[in-house]
Amino acid sequence: MRIGIMGLGRMGANMAARLVEAGHEVVAWNRSPAPVEALVKQGAIGAASIEDLVARLEPPRAIWLMVPAGVVDDMIATLRRLLARGDVIIDGGNSHYREDLRRAKTLAEDGIHFVDVGTSGGVWGRHRGYCQMIGGEREIVQRLDPIFAALAPPLDAAPRTAGRTGAPTTAEHGYLHCGPHGAGHFVKMVHNGIEYGLMGAYAEGMNILRHANVGNAQHSVDAETTPLESPELYRYDFDLPAIAELWRRGSVVASWLLDLIASALERDPDLRDFQGRVSDSGEGRWTLKAAIDESVPAPILSTALGERFASRGEADYAHRLLSAMRREFGGHEEKRP
Amino acid sequence: MRIGIMGLGRMGANMAARLVEAGHEVVAWNRSPAPVEALVKQGAIGAASIEDLVARLEPPRAIWLMVPAGVVDDMIATLRRLLARGDVIIDGGNSHYREDLRRAKTLAEDGIHFVDVGTSGGVWGRHRGYCQMIGGEREIVQRLDPIFAALAPPLDAAPRTAGRTGAPTTAEHGYLHCGPHGAGHFVKMVHNGIEYGLMGAYAEGMNILRHANVGNAQHSVDAETTPLESPELYRYDFDLPAIAELWRRGSVVASWLLDLIASALERDPDLRDFQGRVSDSGEGRWTLKAAIDESVPAPILSTALGERFASRGEADYAHRLLSAMRREFGGHEEKRP
Amino acid sequence: MRIGIMGLGRMGANMAARLVEAGHEVVAWNRSPAPVEALVKQGAIGAASIEDLVARLEPPRAIWLMVPAGVVDDMIATLRRLLARGDVIIDGGNSHYREDLRRAKTLAEDGIHFVDVGTSGGVWGRHRGYCQMIGGEREIVQRLDPIFAALAPPLDAAPRTAGRTGAPTTAEHGYLHCGPHGAGHFVKMVHNGIEYGLMGAYAEGMNILRHANVGNAQHSVDAETTPLESPELYRYDFDLPAIAELWRRGSVVASWLLDLIASALERDPDLRDFQGRVSDSGEGRWTLKAAIDESVPAPILSTALGERFASRGEADYAHRLLSAMRREFGGHEEKRP
Amino acid sequence: MRIGIMGLGRMGANMAARLVEAGHEVVAWNRSPAPVEALVKQGAIGAASIEDLVARLEPPRAIWLMVPAGVVDDMIATLRRLLARGDVIIDGGNSHYREDLRRAKTLAEDGIHFVDVGTSGGVWGRHRGYCQMIGGEREIVQRLDPIFAALAPPLDAAPRTAGRTGAPTTAEHGYLHCGPHGAGHFVKMVHNGIEYGLMGAYAEGMNILRHANVGNAQHSVDAETTPLESPELYRYDFDLPAIAELWRRGSVVASWLLDLIASALERDPDLRDFQGRVSDSGEGRWTLKAAIDESVPAPILSTALGERFASRGEADYAHRLLSAMRREFGGHEEKRP
Repeated sequence: MRIGIMGLGRMGANMAARLVEAGHEVVAWNRSPAPVEALVKQGAIGAASIEDLVARLEPPRAIWLMVPAGVVDDMIATLRRLLARGDVIIDGGNSHYREDLRRAKTLAEDGIHFVDVGTSGGVWGRHRGYCQMIGGEREIVQRLDPIFAALAPPLDAAPRTAGRTGAPTTAEHGYLHCGPHGAGHFVKMVHNGIEYGLMGAYAEGMNILRHANVGNAQHSVDAETTPLESPELYRYDFDLPAIAELWRRGSVVASWLLDLIASALERDPDLRDFQGRVSDSGEGRWTLKAAIDESVPAPILSTALGERFASRGEADYAHRLLSAMRREFGGHEEKRP
Repeated sequence: MRIGIMGLGRMGANMAARLVEAGHEVVAWNRSPAPVEALVKQGAIGAASIEDLVARLEPPRAIWLMVPAGVVDDMIATLRRLLARGDVIIDGGNSHYREDLRRAKTLAEDGIHFVDVGTSGGVWGRHRGYCQMIGGEREIVQRLDPIFAALAPPLDAAPRTAGRTGAPTTAEHGYLHCGPHGAGHFVKMVHNGIEYGLMGAYAEGMNILRHANVGNAQHSVDAETTPLESPELYRYDFDLPAIAELWRRGSVVASWLLDLIASALERDPDLRDFQGRVSDSGEGRWTLKAAIDESVPAPILSTALGERFASRGEADYAHRLLSAMRREFGGHEEKRP
Repeated sequence: MRIGIMGLGRMGANMAARLVEAGHEVVAWNRSPAPVEALVKQGAIGAASIEDLVARLEPPRAIWLMVPAGVVDDMIATLRRLLARGDVIIDGGNSHYREDLRRAKTLAEDGIHFVDVGTSGGVWGRHRGYCQMIGGEREIVQRLDPIFAALAPPLDAAPRTAGRTGAPTTAEHGYLHCGPHGAGHFVKMVHNGIEYGLMGAYAEGMNILRHANVGNAQHSVDAETTPLESPELYRYDFDLPAIAELWRRGSVVASWLLDLIASALERDPDLRDFQGRVSDSGEGRWTLKAAIDESVPAPILSTALGERFASRGEADYAHRLLSAMRREFGGHEEKRP
Repeated sequence: MRIGIMGLGRMGANMAARLVEAGHEVVAWNRSPAPVEALVKQGAIGAASIEDLVARLEPPRAIWLMVPAGVVDDMIATLRRLLARGDVIIDGGNSHYREDLRRAKTLAEDGIHFVDVGTSGGVWGRHRGYCQMIGGEREIVQRLDPIFAALAPPLDAAPRTAGRTGAPTTAEHGYLHCGPHGAGHFVKMVHNGIEYGLMGAYAEGMNILRHANVGNAQHSVDAETTPLESPELYRYDFDLPAIAELWRRGSVVASWLLDLIASALERDPDLRDFQGRVSDSGEGRWTLKAAIDESVPAPILSTALGERFASRGEADYAHRLLSAMRREFGGHEEKRP
């Protein structure tokens, strides 16, 4: 089918290319023209402006937005003036699902439909396919099925779950209509919250393995340092790239994230490219606010988020205050490295 | 090669069967005779007693223990009287690595070698193969290579990591000589610590999705209950089995644990078979004690362990004390369900 | 000075009584008349209606709201019609500081001032005095100084901090103009977040002491239960009321909360009045949302909040899922008590 | 009564001075002579050697050790050769309670008694008195009562707990016979675990207040930074010394630690003397190992300990691995400050 795509950043361009490859007619627009030209070479139809893009689509139109969260409202406002009843706007970016509810309501006033799609897959999605979590009206989502199917991974991306029979569901194909407006971004939000927790679990475990040789170190003996009780138990120099590789096969902790860890450690076991200032990108925060609203305990996901803040120095004042308290009650001077 | 196996519980019997299938000569012994008979039918050589088992092996002998942690010392004491210099005892169970160091030292006095193997794979290992983390002397571990290779998953259990070239390492085959005595169980210990964290991350996320419909509930309005600020944001009834299935393909959180979650939820999305009293089995605890000894922060793994304790009611007194404090300072009576 | 008070629940009535006692003229109103009558007997001036209350005050009027958060907007709407430029409304309840910003802005359109006051002290404030955290315009806050001073604890409620000289500040008197609109409730919000963390720290520690006799218990030996390594180390039956009492004097953990713990444990060391379903009341949640917005790690406060959710059964589905995963990979049946 | 004190570091010298002041005859020894001379000037009896110290005491002797944990065994070995049946050795330092059990057993072979005393009070104990947690045989502990009473804080260090009647217990005097050997150090251990949690709760809360002005900052807008949703909610510049001072009076979070925070912040609100590398001193670690052994969840205390490790850079490798994973799946380059 024919679809418009607005926003050809890394994600948008890859998705457009995957759609073209699958035989869809993609009308592509981007704020700057270079990515449009690149995509036209791959078989897409270029649009010189948003008006042009709308003009090159037939009603009922479908336009997929793949733009930064901060400009979604601007794009929607522009499109609202150009589109007609029955058209549909898809937000495939990282919006908060609360915005979906608001936007769907506003657009409905003009008879324009709205669909929210959370996508996972990162830079790998171009060739592996994108996992898509979809929210919106059932019939509108169904109308877009050829698009979702083309973006999704192949059916054999994972072996079939025991107990499942009959024709595969779309979930088994890597895309799912999760519920009404906002449902797609809600599920994507929690997906990322889980992702933070998984990443943190691996990172902590690898760090414990990395320090399994502390028994070999010379430790200063002073009142501010707890001596290691049994240094003879901590004399292991583990080969972390090999261990990550090992766990990929047959172990309970095998995962795609572990595949990536193996790859990163294979490149440099000491990870010297990184300072350890870990970014976070919204969904993790929103997940925890949702957990608070729902009264659901999420200490692991919460800790994982906090670790990222702390990695960027945001706990420094708290730590200085701890040292200050220790000096107040015990006269302990802070120990310098 | 010929190998003795002592202990034919679920794990031991499956491993023995996998070895037989691979063409090895397995001499099998078990405290009760039925599992031995079952295995003989599959092609193993039965041993009527430990003495008999030792007699049916040729020096240098290799005997794999797959017995509960509590009886390993008894088995080793018995074997020590029967074995000769150059023989090797392998502990494939869930021992603390500190015990490995002690046992290796003791056995070395008699010239008997010791190898520790942490195995992961659970009930699935029989057909998928076992991930094996191995500690001990290099030449002894190499001597046992055919055994490890037969127990391990096939090479194609995971796609090759980018950047790896040349002949595959054993790690790419699912087994690895991790280091000297204790290294195998150390790595397995941390593996399980990570496992707890991963499991907890999924469980919390799924719980947030499960409660995404709290906005539909009637909430009592009283001073002891925080009202939900925006109930309209929490009206989603998510299909958890479908979402787990969805994430298995193309998403960042895909993993073998997620495969199992999809399977468990497919069977019963409400998980009515379970009360939520979660067991823990030693390695998680040891991991955290190791982290403490190493001064390595592991808040996620630690929280995951604590959640299991709490699930079994071990936080109850702490919670009652919190309610008692609230009554003391604010006159708040505890709210009953 | 003369002040109106609306809302004579436990907190409002006590505060009004403290003001009367200090010589202030308190015009008191409540939705139901009984608390008004009780207060009139203590020397307050009763108001039959909100109109009556306003009529009994001289401009510039000061009216202190001590009503549930859910009805503050209604009260303000009513007062807005009755008050004149220069009058001031004080919200002494548990509103979110975001509401203060909104309300102050709205009232400013009519020249009515707004002051937010977070108060701590609970049922003890009547006689100990109330710690007051105040937000609003400087001159308006200063105008109300006699009220704050009367509600506050006496100067000698705590010994003077070393290094402080000169006339005592209001902070040393237990009340403080913390900043512009919302500052009072912001500081109170964080105060309560800290409170949750402190309470949780004591509760966990007391629970560890309570279980220091686990070495005396008979433990089942099975694959689902980790045996206690050194039971001889855990044979202490501690007298918790005595220990709480002990720590109140000379120790680093002495605090007012500990005083309350000592009192609660003195009454019943087993805390049989409580089931351990711990309420939470808004500020703790808001604190963590603020921390997330600020990118400030707060894992302790976050964990303390999550423990309360979990105490009310909100982690149950997560725990059942953990047990389900264990069955999937290891065939472990959940152990029942 | 007459007592020997070995070890005149900061704690030992202060305790000896407090005992002398209370009228006890203190025979003092130290490895280096200067502290002995200083104490003799205050009225103590100097001992030139351990033999001399023992000779200056009458059986049944009482000798209080106040030496680093690492040399306690040496001191005990020396004393064992010099002491007689019925004598008692008191360890007032920071030993693990497991060592108490071992030492008491060994000394009992020679009829020498052992008492373990955990003390809290820091540098303030000299004048405020020491909170003492005592383990050992009942009659031996009673024999030493005059010593404990002299070291303890005065009865009026805290107001009497409601419900307590009759003659004050020793707990109300700041010292308590907590149970058999090791009980004193066990209770002190948990005391310090709680202390870590309390300190962390204050530190996190103060950090949230400190960053309440993030809405005023210029934030870069890029894909790696989550924009602050509502900057207008975070424009507060709080006066932290004043807030700490404020909370000391009438609030639920008043405590001795808060007194110290007020003092430290009064000196420098920016805490420029500190880098935020927080030491930990054994008891916090032991508390968490005990919690693990007891299966008691202690996520707050555990998190507080982990924060200290992390403050010293021990999470760095974990953080680098998180950034590495982000680059692998999303192509995200780590953002530099």
